Amino acid sequence: MPPNDKTVAELGEFGLIDRLTAVFEANFEPEPEPESAFRLDLIVGNGDDAAAWEGPAGTTVFTCDAMVAGSHFDLSYSTPADVGWRSMVSAQSDIAAMGFRPAYSTVTLGLTGNETGSLLDEVYVGMAQACSGFGGRIVGGDVVRSATMFISVAMVGSESPVGHSSTLPMTRSGAKPGDLIAVTGPLGGSAGGLRLLMSGASPSGPAKALIDAHRRPEPSVATGVWLATNGVGCAVDISDGLAADLGRVCRASNAAAAIQLADLPVEPELKAVFPDDWPELALGGGEGYQLLFTAPAEVVEAALAMNPAITPIGEIVAGEPQVTVLDKNGSPLTTLMSGHDHFPKR
Amino acid sequence: MPPNDKTVAELGEFGLIDRLTAVFEANFEPEPEPESAFRLDLIVGNGDDAAAWEGPAGTTVFTCDAMVAGSHFDLSYSTPADVGWRSMVSAQSDIAAMGFRPAYSTVTLGLTGNETGSLLDEVYVGMAQACSGFGGRIVGGDVVRSATMFISVAMVGSESPVGHSSTLPMTRSGAKPGDLIAVTGPLGGSAGGLRLLMSGASPSGPAKALIDAHRRPEPSVATGVWLATNGVGCAVDISDGLAADLGRVCRASNAAAAIQLADLPVEPELKAVFPDDWPELALGGGEGYQLLFTAPAEVVEAALAMNPAITPIGEIVAGEPQVTVLDKNGSPLTTLMSGHDHFPKR
Repeated sequence: MPPNDKTVAELGEFGLIDRLTAVFEANFEPEPEPESAFRLDLIVGNGDDAAAWEGPAGTTVFTCDAMVAGSHFDLSYSTPADVGWRSMVSAQSDIAAMGFRPAYSTVTLGLTGNETGSLLDEVYVGMAQACSGFGGRIVGGDVVRSATMFISVAMVGSESPVGHSSTLPMTRSGAKPGDLIAVTGPLGGSAGGLRLLMSGASPSGPAKALIDAHRRPEPSVATGVWLATNGVGCAVDISDGLAADLGRVCRASNAAAAIQLADLPVEPELKAVFPDDWPELALGGGEGYQLLFTAPAEVVEAALAMNPAITPIGEIVAGEPQVTVLDKNGSPLTTLMSGHDHFPKR
Repeated sequence: MPPNDKTVAELGEFGLIDRLTAVFEANFEPEPEPESAFRLDLIVGNGDDAAAWEGPAGTTVFTCDAMVAGSHFDLSYSTPADVGWRSMVSAQSDIAAMGFRPAYSTVTLGLTGNETGSLLDEVYVGMAQACSGFGGRIVGGDVVRSATMFISVAMVGSESPVGHSSTLPMTRSGAKPGDLIAVTGPLGGSAGGLRLLMSGASPSGPAKALIDAHRRPEPSVATGVWLATNGVGCAVDISDGLAADLGRVCRASNAAAAIQLADLPVEPELKAVFPDDWPELALGGGEGYQLLFTAPAEVVEAALAMNPAITPIGEIVAGEPQVTVLDKNGSPLTTLMSGHDHFPKR
């Protein structure tokens, strides 16, 4: 190992992706364009929820997401069907965050060989349930042997419905000072549910709502399509936590965000079960797959009329990229610039 | 584990894919079609090199392929750049086997955290080299923590050049009795090279050609596009070995194949280094990524005029799906119906 070389654990996940993207671009020499009527023009590349390109008849979006045993799921407290559901929803949510509909998926299964057929059947039942609800029929896949079980889903999303074939994908870089920030539903429930599952809590009483939020999160496909076709240009799905994903919007848009802790929508069950920790769960908990979007006040108002679960939580302001959480008096409680990192820097 | 349940190792890879596809279809209820001008119609689903669907302006193909440390690559004898190259070529070859051009890719990296940044840089250099040569710009990805390193590439392929926007994808099910069987170049070299690398042979003399064939296989993109646009309806890429992949064509087409051992194209180096084992390597060795196609004699002749490396090796005949290897006198040497299985049945 050269003296200045760092391991992935030292580099951190986000630094790594930026670095590898730069390495690719530096070493990539596109082939001469074939004489083609079917030019595909890349309009969103690396670094957003999904990539997007324009063909002659509309825009296509493309994403991938992986879940690894031990890191993203644990069959000792998740059912195989829940794991299948969540692996599909995670990709569907990326497509929804662009304002598109899930269309087709491929699934790569990395298997140790010791999984039973019925366990994998259940994984696929969960996937089929998620596809039935939100789109993304499985059309192909690959099964490979791996010492660690993993599920990798790649998904293509199609254009929004008729009359909107020129819809632009919503990106992370479209936030403008003065925009309101809104989310499509309650935060922190999935993370609270995961914490309960890991502690062995029984799914009854208020715990049940949280555990269900973790087991069966839903991607906001219909809302995402509505937003993109009604003038919203900036959205992200909350997969790694509000603070982390809003932080990405700030960095990509070169702006700051101020959010009101008291305005964060949370389930009453979250406050009941975690009276002290609910703000941490609402700000930092991921895998709930709500969308976050920014737009002028009148657009947010129209969105709210369409989906009453939508909740404004703050505002985009000019300044260095950062997320500030304010108390009821408008005083900063905390300033956040980190997020969930699979390889947090040491 | 229920008494009749079997593990993946007992089920085998191919049985597993069929089973899970059936589970998905049985549990999938498509959403009501949105009122959309952008209907996407699936024309090739599970079980081919790639899936394909038709939109208003042409056909799109979609595939995924994964490589796992320990199963598909070993950094003790492969360079990181070679691993990156091969992970990309494996997906490009699937697209080529449909007769299309690689367009966009997403890459999921499963990392232990102990990989160095420079090692991953080299992986991406290899990927960029393969994309520069054969298409498939990386537009997105995911990095996840995994106890086993893996690379999963999903790739979308676009329509063939202008004037052929109605090109149909080549499938495994299009072989007809009377068709000739041809391959696009020498067989067994990559498998021979892998055997040499694993034994620690130095890459010099005749060994070098074989080791290079393993390190840097090339997908037959240009030939694949030519075949699809010139009336060939049946092709497959030889990723798991001639016998295995031709066996899949036979099963999908419900026909048999008879091939001449003496007609198999092999590098002279393969016969020099493996004077006894070359037939086994040519019939069973994968990861060389030649295409195999079937077509009437006059189409094969035209293909040969376009690419002189193309070699007829036998014929599709009526009968139960099986592959028969014939000696010079036309007597059957062996009948094959198996192939490379990541989880061979016990």
